[in-house]
This record gives sequence, structure tokens and C-alpha cells, in this order.
Amino acid sequence: MFALDPAFAATSHPLLELALCEARLQDDARYGWVVLIPRVPAVRELEDLSADDQARLMAEILAAGRAVRAVGAALGRPVEKLNIGALGNVTPQLHVHVVGRRADDPAWPGPVWGHSAALPYDAEMLAMATQAATGALRTL
Amino acid sequence: MFALDPAFAATSHPLLELALCEARLQDDARYGWVVLIPRVPAVRELEDLSADDQARLMAEILAAGRAVRAVGAALGRPVEKLNIGALGNVTPQLHVHVVGRRADDPAWPGPVWGHSAALPYDAEMLAMATQAATGALRTL
Repeated sequence: MFALDPAFAATSHPLLELALCEARLQDDARYGWVVLIPRVPAVRELEDLSADDQARLMAEILAAGRAVRAVGAALGRPVEKLNIGALGNVTPQLHVHVVGRRADDPAWPGPVWGHSAALPYDAEMLAMATQAATGALRTL
Repeated sequence: MFALDPAFAATSHPLLELALCEARLQDDARYGWVVLIPRVPAVRELEDLSADDQARLMAEILAAGRAVRAVGAALGRPVEKLNIGALGNVTPQLHVHVVGRRADDPAWPGPVWGHSAALPYDAEMLAMATQAATGALRTL
């Protein structure tokens, strides 16, 4: 049975259940940042997914890119580059990060992972970001 | 017309031309590390690829994962976790990194990108890594 690793609940907010993945908003107001976690038990690598689920994941990564762009637009910080990463060195449950980057963000041009402590959203920004991201994900 | 960004020639060795991508071996003997560059002009984000090319890219990422595992096995350092990243903050031409990670590697558990200077292959290890990677990519 699938169960979300508790690490995700601690660092992100739920957005939407997509066909394959649980989509969550990373709780870091410095970046538009969506995390996709396939709702498949015991999956650690892309190769552990079926071919159908691999295709679904690609479609959901593209939708997450649109969501991240929508968050950036809603918060007045348009995305300049998407960064996509599937690492899982710390939290082994398969997940994909889709992050909106700008040349003026704190980690630019390096990766965001492990760079610095998150800046959690305040309630108003979280509501705006969630609405923008959810709207874009619903177009999938 | 497609032209490979010169940054890739400076940091990696050619492996094979796949259906979509040029596959290259990153010149860093500390990691099994394949870089995939779609041979499509003026492409910066996943969303710039056609749906057919997105599907090809997913298949080639999976093949690159097998190649990276083969490099690790050939060099006596079996891969424990695959890391996949599409960043492009420094080199904007669309490319995907597929990196074999181990808990005893220098950057673990952080990302390899931007971590530390590469350790170039010597000729003998380069030949072994190239043979292992190319063999695995040919199964695609």
C-alpha cells in the first residue's frame, strides 16, 4: 500500500492528486517549487515504474512546470528557467522536484537542493501560490 | 541547425548518438555520469520538445541509467542511487544529467552539480567506462 513519506508533510503543502502523483507545493516562498510523488508503493527509481506510469510522470512533470510558472507569475517573480531533479539521496521514496529559477534567486546558478534553509510561506502568499499552482495542474 | 554547445565538449566525452540525444560521458571519474543532449535546435526546456521527443527522452534517460550502472560495475563502484537532473542554469542548451551516486561519494547526500572540481579519467579508466556505457546504451 502506498504511504507518503512523512518528510514530505514536513516540508510541503498538498496541492492535488494527479493521475499518477501526489502534487505538493514546497514550503519555500523563495521559489515556485512543486514536488511530484508517484502514488505507487516501494518505488525508488524511475525504472521501477511501469512504462505507462513513466509516460504519466513525464506529462505530470510538464504540468508541474506550468504550475511553477503560474506561481511565479502570481507572486510577481516570473520563472526564467525550470529545474527538474529526481535525487532521493535523503528521502528515498521516488519524487521529482520541479523548481522555478531566476538569476536573482539565492542559489542561482547552483542547484536549490541542500543550498540553504527554506523561507516558509506566510498565509496570504501560500493561498495565492496554492491557487495558482492548482489552477495550472487542473489543465492536465 | 543543431550544434552542440562547446561547454559539453570541454567537460565530457562522446559515447553514442541515440534516436533523440547525443549521449556523453561526463569527464569525472568520481561518478558514473552520462549527459543526454537532444539534437534539436533552440531547445531549452522539456516543454520545447514535441510529445514524441519527450517520450524518446524518457526512454533515453532510462537507458542512461543502465549505462551509469554499467560504468559503476565496471569500475568496482556499484551505483546505489540514480540522480537525474535537468538544470541548464549555466549551459542553457537542454540537457539531462544521469548520475550514479554512492553514500561514500564526495558530494553525498547533496547534489553533484556545482559541488567540487571534476577528477578527469585516466586513459585506462576512460576506456573501461566508455565501453561499459556504450554497451548498455546499445540495448536501447
